[in-house]
Amino acid sequence: MQKSQNKLFAYKLVYKRIHTAILEGVLKPGERIPSARALAKEMGLSRGSVEEGYALLKSEGFIEAKGQAGTRVSQNLIEQPKPSLNEVTVRQPGFTTDLQTTDILPFQLGIPALDAFPFKTWARMAARNARNTAIDNLTYPSVYGLPELRLAIAQYLNLYRGVQCQPTQVFITSGYVNSIKWITKALLSPDDKVGVEDPGYPLTKLILENERLTPAFVPVDGSGVTIPKEREIKALVVTPAHQSPTCVSLSLQRRQMLLDWAAGNDSWIIEDDYDGEYRHTGLPLPALKSLDTQDRVIYSGTFSKVLFPNLRTAYIVVPQNLVSRFEQLSDLYAGNVAGLTQLCIFNFMQEGHFTRHIQRMRKLYRKRREFAAKLFAQYLGNNLSIEPQPGGMHMILKFNDPSCNDVEIANKLLHEGLYSQALSQWSSKKTHPGLILSFTNIKTEEECTALILRLKALL
Amino acid sequence: MQKSQNKLFAYKLVYKRIHTAILEGVLKPGERIPSARALAKEMGLSRGSVEEGYALLKSEGFIEAKGQAGTRVSQNLIEQPKPSLNEVTVRQPGFTTDLQTTDILPFQLGIPALDAFPFKTWARMAARNARNTAIDNLTYPSVYGLPELRLAIAQYLNLYRGVQCQPTQVFITSGYVNSIKWITKALLSPDDKVGVEDPGYPLTKLILENERLTPAFVPVDGSGVTIPKEREIKALVVTPAHQSPTCVSLSLQRRQMLLDWAAGNDSWIIEDDYDGEYRHTGLPLPALKSLDTQDRVIYSGTFSKVLFPNLRTAYIVVPQNLVSRFEQLSDLYAGNVAGLTQLCIFNFMQEGHFTRHIQRMRKLYRKRREFAAKLFAQYLGNNLSIEPQPGGMHMILKFNDPSCNDVEIANKLLHEGLYSQALSQWSSKKTHPGLILSFTNIKTEEECTALILRLKALL
Repeated sequence: MQKSQNKLFAYKLVYKRIHTAILEGVLKPGERIPSARALAKEMGLSRGSVEEGYALLKSEGFIEAKGQAGTRVSQNLIEQPKPSLNEVTVRQPGFTTDLQTTDILPFQLGIPALDAFPFKTWARMAARNARNTAIDNLTYPSVYGLPELRLAIAQYLNLYRGVQCQPTQVFITSGYVNSIKWITKALLSPDDKVGVEDPGYPLTKLILENERLTPAFVPVDGSGVTIPKEREIKALVVTPAHQSPTCVSLSLQRRQMLLDWAAGNDSWIIEDDYDGEYRHTGLPLPALKSLDTQDRVIYSGTFSKVLFPNLRTAYIVVPQNLVSRFEQLSDLYAGNVAGLTQLCIFNFMQEGHFTRHIQRMRKLYRKRREFAAKLFAQYLGNNLSIEPQPGGMHMILKFNDPSCNDVEIANKLLHEGLYSQALSQWSSKKTHPGLILSFTNIKTEEECTALILRLKALL
Repeated sequence: MQKSQNKLFAYKLVYKRIHTAILEGVLKPGERIPSARALAKEMGLSRGSVEEGYALLKSEGFIEAKGQAGTRVSQNLIEQPKPSLNEVTVRQPGFTTDLQTTDILPFQLGIPALDAFPFKTWARMAARNARNTAIDNLTYPSVYGLPELRLAIAQYLNLYRGVQCQPTQVFITSGYVNSIKWITKALLSPDDKVGVEDPGYPLTKLILENERLTPAFVPVDGSGVTIPKEREIKALVVTPAHQSPTCVSLSLQRRQMLLDWAAGNDSWIIEDDYDGEYRHTGLPLPALKSLDTQDRVIYSGTFSKVLFPNLRTAYIVVPQNLVSRFEQLSDLYAGNVAGLTQLCIFNFMQEGHFTRHIQRMRKLYRKRREFAAKLFAQYLGNNLSIEPQPGGMHMILKFNDPSCNDVEIANKLLHEGLYSQALSQWSSKKTHPGLILSFTNIKTEEECTALILRLKALL
């Protein structure tokens, strides 16, 4: 009974499935629909029923047979798909949902100089790896990360960042959020107090709150983050190379004090070394982790800045005596980065492109920052002053008028297609108004001048 | 003063950095070390100081100049790197840490038939995408997922799984763990009770506990999961296509009862459709989500089974009225899958390889399951009986002797290189002992017979 009824109305089921998909705009004019044979198998119906359903759709003009090209949604449908359903939402991290774009905006933070990335070298290498896909590359990658990549990262950190570590101490993650979640889960308990820099990167506080930890603001001064006064702070997230956003480097004396504090207080230091490679003046600074003789520092690195963000690949380095604790959580916190992605990064490092690229970028960013600072001073010197900075990938423009509302200005700029972040939104206290913006993708003085004039017109 | 002191001992810093990396086994014999010029820049030292350090390392035999090939760690080092440091740990998900391997073991669960994957087609397509890398592919991918891929998944689900959804309802994740974390964070509160199937996939319970939710066991019978009796259950994670591990399909009547329960109790159903495509007998079943007229079902799909696990790519489909709630959490829960990976999956779907591959695999699994069941019965019929199953990618072998200790047997098999999981470890209650094992990668009857004889010798 059930079966014969099924058969009786089977063509209607077919009709409904295709018809709905077209009306809802999921299937668009010109797009191919399954062959009657394939759909019959999928739906467990006879081919005849599917053909009957298709015939009805054809007679109503929804689909048309295109010979070799298969059956397709008609090009000249009277009903147009609803426009709102026609769009697929896109959003980059850090943007509010009401501004959706895949394009990079001028001054956008956190994006390396994409025009200077050796993407032909990368593309050739990635294509070679992809072509060599074999059965071995199809199964689960190691939950800790590709062994060769962990070794290459350990070598890089030992030689170039002064961080003594074994490859087993390196774990691959899918970005900063993943890194911080894994670290805090391994080391902290619910409701623990975790120090964050003030001013500081707003996302860090969000992640901690979401993990049900209690963020505590720790002030930043001219030597970087200060030593926490509250004894209950169990961990402190710091950006020693160029403090985010002030770009101050943590002084050597302060580094030592911080390590002593962590050892004495039995607390952890989470070193976010997001752009430590890029220093414009003075000596390069090794990572804070390189001074960590008492195993209190967990190092967080990323390929988003030194390669490119589309990779979604980062890593953490944990002290030797914590390796097994991090391994135990790997099923629940592993970065889950596709093997091909990890292999490409490994090859790029192995063949020497990685360190060469960093050296080139260091020069380029120095140059781009220099002309940007010069031109901003020249055109906007009456409104804004530019903080001198030893390194990093962004600039801070402080308004000369302390009563400016930097949040309003940043919003206004964003709606005119210019990116910036309001300094006051990175701080817990009332702060001198300013804008944080990136110079990394400004290629020429002419481009920079044009952008500054656009910005000036909006102030 | 500081500076002259630095200069005085600079060569020692260079010596120490390289020397330590060699002694610790991070730099291995034959591996290249940075040029004196590059290291001088990185460490902020004069080139002379680095050359002095290198000279000392050479005189002690640690490094040697190799002309064009650069300076390298000596091949004939007297000190050998410590063996334990020489290894980089690898582990697949689901393995205990004391069994570390990158190889797939016979009977290993959750791995599709890798020999039958069209990897030449895949490799060609992936290579083409990699070669076409351009500036546009370097920036952050949309936090929701690649728009084209979300659309392709929506089309696939509408046409082939009967799930009516818009592309905006589809979010890309980096696997099942990521999916469950995002869903539970969006819909549940701390300590909420969440139903899990009993017997059921052990990882689900682990994820929920780790997210500080309270798992509650809900019994499975011959029609699939039963209707929860506890009113406080706020969500239920189910595997309707082939219950994991029993492979029972949730009956149509039970599906309706479950949806009614969810609507009446204001609870959520999380449908884990991990292998819904693979049904061996009877009619294909559309997803439970296809009956969800009251928006209570969140659908969780994955590419690990229908393509391959190395991709680390999965997705969720959420009801229309929950889209913005999931979007709001995307910065903290986005899958962070590299753009190239998403583009490859999209192309594979777009060009029709995806549905063709699924159809081929359905036939292949039916065949492989049939001969495996036949041969197991033939050789092990006295010890074991095989449950008939309508679909899925694994078999259940029940021991005829109810006093068998399946955990001990599974451990013994694993140490002899044969994978299986003990049925009793997937259940909260004392259960009839059995083994869960996969047949997907057993290519021939001969191979199957050889494996069964190896297994038989260990029982």
